[in-house]
Amino acid sequence: MTERRLDGVGVTPLSGVGTVVWYSPDAELDDPPDPDSVDTEAETERFEAARTTAREELEAERDRTAERVGQEEAAVFDAHVQFLDDPQITDGVAERIEGGLPAEHAVSETFEGFIEQFEGMEGRMAERADDLRDVRDRLVRVLSGGERVNLGDLPEGSVVLAERLTPSDTAQLDPSKVAGFVTETGGRTSHAAIFARSLALPAVVGVGEELRDVEGGTDVVVNGTDGVVVFDPDEETREAAAGDDDAEIREDPVSTADGTEIEVAANVGTRKDLGPATERGADGIGLYRTEFLFLDRESPPDEEEQYEAYVEALDAFPEGRVVVRTLDVGGDKPIDYLDLPDEENPFLGERGIRRSLGPDSDLFETQLRALLRACGSENGGSSDSSDGGLAVMLPLVATVEEVAAAREKMAEVADDLDDEGVEYARPEFGVMVETPAAAFVADDLVERVDFFSIGTNDLAQYVMAAERGNERVSELGDYRQPAVLRAIRATVEAAEGTDAWVGMCGEMAGDPDLTELLLGLGLDELSMSAVTVPQVKAAVTNVSLSDARELAAEALEASTKDEVERVLTNSTLS
Amino acid sequence: MTERRLDGVGVTPLSGVGTVVWYSPDAELDDPPDPDSVDTEAETERFEAARTTAREELEAERDRTAERVGQEEAAVFDAHVQFLDDPQITDGVAERIEGGLPAEHAVSETFEGFIEQFEGMEGRMAERADDLRDVRDRLVRVLSGGERVNLGDLPEGSVVLAERLTPSDTAQLDPSKVAGFVTETGGRTSHAAIFARSLALPAVVGVGEELRDVEGGTDVVVNGTDGVVVFDPDEETREAAAGDDDAEIREDPVSTADGTEIEVAANVGTRKDLGPATERGADGIGLYRTEFLFLDRESPPDEEEQYEAYVEALDAFPEGRVVVRTLDVGGDKPIDYLDLPDEENPFLGERGIRRSLGPDSDLFETQLRALLRACGSENGGSSDSSDGGLAVMLPLVATVEEVAAAREKMAEVADDLDDEGVEYARPEFGVMVETPAAAFVADDLVERVDFFSIGTNDLAQYVMAAERGNERVSELGDYRQPAVLRAIRATVEAAEGTDAWVGMCGEMAGDPDLTELLLGLGLDELSMSAVTVPQVKAAVTNVSLSDARELAAEALEASTKDEVERVLTNSTLS
Repeated sequence: MTERRLDGVGVTPLSGVGTVVWYSPDAELDDPPDPDSVDTEAETERFEAARTTAREELEAERDRTAERVGQEEAAVFDAHVQFLDDPQITDGVAERIEGGLPAEHAVSETFEGFIEQFEGMEGRMAERADDLRDVRDRLVRVLSGGERVNLGDLPEGSVVLAERLTPSDTAQLDPSKVAGFVTETGGRTSHAAIFARSLALPAVVGVGEELRDVEGGTDVVVNGTDGVVVFDPDEETREAAAGDDDAEIREDPVSTADGTEIEVAANVGTRKDLGPATERGADGIGLYRTEFLFLDRESPPDEEEQYEAYVEALDAFPEGRVVVRTLDVGGDKPIDYLDLPDEENPFLGERGIRRSLGPDSDLFETQLRALLRACGSENGGSSDSSDGGLAVMLPLVATVEEVAAAREKMAEVADDLDDEGVEYARPEFGVMVETPAAAFVADDLVERVDFFSIGTNDLAQYVMAAERGNERVSELGDYRQPAVLRAIRATVEAAEGTDAWVGMCGEMAGDPDLTELLLGLGLDELSMSAVTVPQVKAAVTNVSLSDARELAAEALEASTKDEVERVLTNSTLS
Repeated sequence: MTERRLDGVGVTPLSGVGTVVWYSPDAELDDPPDPDSVDTEAETERFEAARTTAREELEAERDRTAERVGQEEAAVFDAHVQFLDDPQITDGVAERIEGGLPAEHAVSETFEGFIEQFEGMEGRMAERADDLRDVRDRLVRVLSGGERVNLGDLPEGSVVLAERLTPSDTAQLDPSKVAGFVTETGGRTSHAAIFARSLALPAVVGVGEELRDVEGGTDVVVNGTDGVVVFDPDEETREAAAGDDDAEIREDPVSTADGTEIEVAANVGTRKDLGPATERGADGIGLYRTEFLFLDRESPPDEEEQYEAYVEALDAFPEGRVVVRTLDVGGDKPIDYLDLPDEENPFLGERGIRRSLGPDSDLFETQLRALLRACGSENGGSSDSSDGGLAVMLPLVATVEEVAAAREKMAEVADDLDDEGVEYARPEFGVMVETPAAAFVADDLVERVDFFSIGTNDLAQYVMAAERGNERVSELGDYRQPAVLRAIRATVEAAEGTDAWVGMCGEMAGDPDLTELLLGLGLDELSMSAVTVPQVKAAVTNVSLSDARELAAEALEASTKDEVERVLTNSTLS
């Protein structure tokens, strides 16, 4: 049998070998039969039976997810059940069956209308389209007598093939069983791609419709480095893949060739990411996103639940620093209990620290209480200790006033804890630099913080006025743009000669080809998806800081992205 | 009779005296009667008759607008007629009448559902909500036997009161008859406010629901300076208002107290703005927005139509410079023939120069042909002449490559015109500085342009990552923020020592309280809504550049907006 290869976008520098398991391929419906031949009553009964089965499945999956992953991840299934009971949907299906369509077609047509409607909308409404697709596919599958692959219970060595993987899908995946995944749609920043990086799974996305021709049970090699998927691989391809992740895991902190220690940390987006972060040798957590604690649930997590989550992260890195970013949500996130506004440009709206100092100030207070208490725990460190511990970081800061207000809030919380006799400690305190404003006023901000962490995804987006998720302008929003490098340099420069350290926690930090440039620009810490920690640690050990500074100076002179890339070919790492 | 005062937001520094004319107040419907008492057949006939009347009115208004204003402005009425014929609407009304509602209530309820749906959407879809409101109000008025005020034919001295004024309303207003307007809703950046500024009309917006208690025919003073509306004004108030716009009109260019000439120009958004621009003494046009040529029509304007529009502007300022911005549209604009994308964050999407160098490159070529030909016309000047003439300006530039590509395109167009033997001249060539990227790479950009014009509305929005139209964050996006001042200064600094001049064409330029600061920051030109040209010219003459530079240096040291404002109280102008 000869190899077949499909090209896509590799999203992790890892390869995997396994066997294809198809997940929820689009049910292809035949053309509907002559309406007169359709038994309306029988089809109505079939639909009702399918609805009951789908509800039972959803409830079982919800319970399993609640037990294995968490209440918050389970809530999405309740939303799906609600769609099953939505009168607009059940009436729509009933009407179409009356009109002479079989149940499958009636379901498909009814949902299609709503999916299109939601797709036409923006932000969190648009995400409903994915939920509707999930429910439609489930109903059509039940009606067609298909079996649902249970993502939580796959045989070891499975490589999942799917049109797309939604958040509710990936929440169920058991990373210890899965050897990788491949999707028809998606790009480097799609949910599935971020998920693969945080769990260090080999993955290729955006392969296109040709993927559908592959049958379940086929042997497959997923090469995430080159973005290639090989079916029926020959022995050579298999062996090459098995030896592909030869990155040495370095448990200890690393230094440049000329002896400067650089902190290499992991970004953590859910509890599940803690394992890969320690396994891949991260020195600590440079960005602990707390959103996962708040998403997909009916009410916010209380102080105790948060405290436990933060202590869990601190305990995973008893020697390392854990930088926790306070809640960073805005109008594009589906959090019903927050009453988030529908905004025309949610990325330029009320989000991050703006909400924490505004409508969500109660949540902010609770989060700060949990954080200060966690800082007082065994591995919590404190702002005075030099051996890591907890650091608090504010998202989307644009003014000095915001930092002052947040500091004041933290002082109030500390006073309250004092009054109550509750144990706590003062954490390190810093801000994300992700708005151009923060870069422009960095010299004023630095007087009020212990550290900066440059969020290059957002910083590039705002500096270039180009949304990273928008394919039409994503090239423009690249972090190799001269303007972005200069904004980074301005930030680092403001901190030079002060006690503040400067880190970076965007995608840029995880690109080992850029490590020399970043160290040359003066960064003290790099935080990234766990999967690339070994590659970046290796890169750090090969960098000489004096060469790196020359490289950075040259890159800052470049006037175009092409010139920056030309300069980068002079990197000793390339 | 005693005076009654209502407070709102003044949007022009002008006062006006006149008589109230109510425009399309919300028809207040009584509670619907008992369904059994409703004659379904009669109500259906009433609805059909109202639909016919509404269609006739709309067609008449369309023809009148086409004749007096232009084909493009008239197109909105066709869209309204389409709603009258939309089966979702007519079926909805019919069903509700069947259910026992009178025609007015059936119309009101049916439209309400669609209006809410569109309001929940974003961008250009949301604008449909205003169109639907227009059509609903018209139908309800016809059904209630009300008379529509004809905005194009008001008695002289009318002060229009309205809940809101939509673009289709303002397109009809005859500025020579209207003494001002007052609206319940809206803010400084609402459509009506921009309209008032460009036509130099006294106006107060955002007065609130109390406005509804005012009856038609009441005497009124509109004080746009203080944002106050006085009904039944006494003689003193009247006289004060009449003497309020004492700004001296200076036809000639002005210089600072220490002798530096500063160009004070007007922003022009439609043909109608040319009159006020010359009347208020603008030296030229610092921002000629070409979008109006492309909006509300079925196909783009051809080369000839554009050529004529540009020549018309040049002829209005035979001595002055006319800076024409090439088409600046994106996913939030309703231009059907452009197939604009629905984007999650249209302000961070494919717009401005990005479209001109991408999907709209044919339009860009046509526009450049028209511009080069207009530059070759009698008052077109050329890049070599020092007495004004045409300048071409690119919107939303973020990279050096964009400027290089646009220059190349212009050279190709010039070659084509040469080959064809068509008369033309090379205009001045510059870019808007409105992305943070442009400020960061200004030293590279300046080598490739004749001028910068800083667009402070967008620049502030992107630097602060705060959308100016979003009330929740508009305070944050203020141009008095230290980060914005520093971005402006970085831009001017890059141009110092070069031949390039630096202007400003955002709202900030029209604020006379900031004139000293802006001249101190090093700006050579200020362009604004026509209405404030006299105030800014007066301010310029009072500024000493050396004092201004000290003021600017102090403002650049400020770390908060409050500190900037404190520094500004030291301005000799305050």
